[in-house]
Amino acid sequence: MITQACNGKEIGKTIYDIVIVGGGSSGLTSAIYASRYGLKTILFSDSFGGAMGLAHIISNYPGFKEISGLELADKFIEQAKALGAEIEFEKVMDIAKNGDCFIVNTDRRTVNARKVILAIGRTKKKLGIEREGELIGKGISYCATCDGWLYKGKVVGVVGGSDSAVTSALLLADLAKKVYLIYRKDKLRAEDVWVKHVLSNPKIEVLYNTEITELLGSGQLTGIRTSASKVIQLDGLFIEIGMVPNTELLAKLGLVLDSENYIVVDKTQKTSISGIFAVGDATNSTELKQVLTSASQGAIAVYHCHLELKSRF
Amino acid sequence: MITQACNGKEIGKTIYDIVIVGGGSSGLTSAIYASRYGLKTILFSDSFGGAMGLAHIISNYPGFKEISGLELADKFIEQAKALGAEIEFEKVMDIAKNGDCFIVNTDRRTVNARKVILAIGRTKKKLGIEREGELIGKGISYCATCDGWLYKGKVVGVVGGSDSAVTSALLLADLAKKVYLIYRKDKLRAEDVWVKHVLSNPKIEVLYNTEITELLGSGQLTGIRTSASKVIQLDGLFIEIGMVPNTELLAKLGLVLDSENYIVVDKTQKTSISGIFAVGDATNSTELKQVLTSASQGAIAVYHCHLELKSRF
Repeated sequence: MITQACNGKEIGKTIYDIVIVGGGSSGLTSAIYASRYGLKTILFSDSFGGAMGLAHIISNYPGFKEISGLELADKFIEQAKALGAEIEFEKVMDIAKNGDCFIVNTDRRTVNARKVILAIGRTKKKLGIEREGELIGKGISYCATCDGWLYKGKVVGVVGGSDSAVTSALLLADLAKKVYLIYRKDKLRAEDVWVKHVLSNPKIEVLYNTEITELLGSGQLTGIRTSASKVIQLDGLFIEIGMVPNTELLAKLGLVLDSENYIVVDKTQKTSISGIFAVGDATNSTELKQVLTSASQGAIAVYHCHLELKSRF
Repeated sequence: MITQACNGKEIGKTIYDIVIVGGGSSGLTSAIYASRYGLKTILFSDSFGGAMGLAHIISNYPGFKEISGLELADKFIEQAKALGAEIEFEKVMDIAKNGDCFIVNTDRRTVNARKVILAIGRTKKKLGIEREGELIGKGISYCATCDGWLYKGKVVGVVGGSDSAVTSALLLADLAKKVYLIYRKDKLRAEDVWVKHVLSNPKIEVLYNTEITELLGSGQLTGIRTSASKVIQLDGLFIEIGMVPNTELLAKLGLVLDSENYIVVDKTQKTSISGIFAVGDATNSTELKQVLTSASQGAIAVYHCHLELKSRF
């Protein structure tokens, strides 16, 4: 433990070497590495697992031939706790610079932090169509893994052509009677292996060059109208058209973001503000956003935090 | 499988989408990802596990609280094979550009490759002292995990002050009667947690500001003379003074290396030669060289190989 006083005005007596914001792969790995280095570490998150937790089956994380995302997330959490990290179910509301430290406010407490690691991930993009908001949970969903079981034996649609759209369609085909995969372009852009499975699945019908112009049904979704003015009856519609980084928290801090709102980091995971690091899906580290690549960024961020903290004494 | 003819003069009929050179964390993860993408993939290595295989216990690879390096390496190998990768125990002798492909010669065959991923790792630095070579296996060792059991109840030395020196000393203290940790500086530079363990271990004596000037004993090491002209009787001496990248293979290719001979890569793991990617400990990707960070580089390299291969059709 490196902890010493900050040179700002501390709130209370607890100063953490590292406060981690976010409980997905990159945040939890940061907690594992920070504890391994003997740093006083706390991780706050209001939802654990992140993108990992939403993955039905993971088969490309080295070490596990097949594991569910939730099971893998549990292993990360257990490991971080076993190494001594504090892992708390709290939402971070606000982060402010305070001398050479930071003050972090959650919905339940205030702590001082020497270094902050942002592992805040991404959320699903909305379709942006009328009545989308009011029909969420009434036929509209953004997570096949979470809500698919509600549509056993029913007819559903999936919007999108990416890996997550295509794997959602496959997952739903195991449950539903019929799955429409609705994509605005003329060729799916998912991994070849997934596309092959989709095209050979008799329950899945791909509607290419198709956009949704209207959501039908009052109080509960009953169908959609497409850009070809065709009406399709649906019990559920899963929207899988991409992700946006969760960067709202950062507006006040004034971190440099790229043109798509990802946090700009260098190869040591440093952001534009000294003392704040960022890792995982909300950063521009790599295009390939995986449990593995996010975890690696967590390790690298902590290594460089540790070097900076050690160099002060 | 993307495989099509190369535009050079192919040797035989087998063209691999990706040939991976090296069987450590980064190479094996490249094989896992490449197979997952459905690419025709072969991995050649004359020693599996790499730096991972030499680690006694790994407790910071997310997903496993504690696992031996060899056990984790076996899991990587099994996973790559289960996904369809060919993994072969062969030494790569030579790689040459051939049109827009490459010809890769091993000690047993010649294959054509669209893309090459170099995962060639590092080896231990030599002390560079007289008679070091002739005493290897006769008291001199570079791997405590491999040879430590030979020194049960005996007196050994470890040269170095890094993580690997200090963890080797700890491992040896479980077996040997007495361990001298011999370091040329006045403060160990390993992780704090390891240093604490070393300093509180009654079997370990740290000799600071000390260099070895002579290896004693004929035919078998019996001791050392230090820079303070002190003679210390030893049964074994483990040299842990750092690593050098295994880049000899690359001289003919003319890859750009950095000042310490690490392969220069960009954030997509591309080297200075189009079609050749490099991953893991032999690259300048990150200072932090871990099973996790190397694995992540393997995934990123394959992702970008795949994009390049797909864009050709």
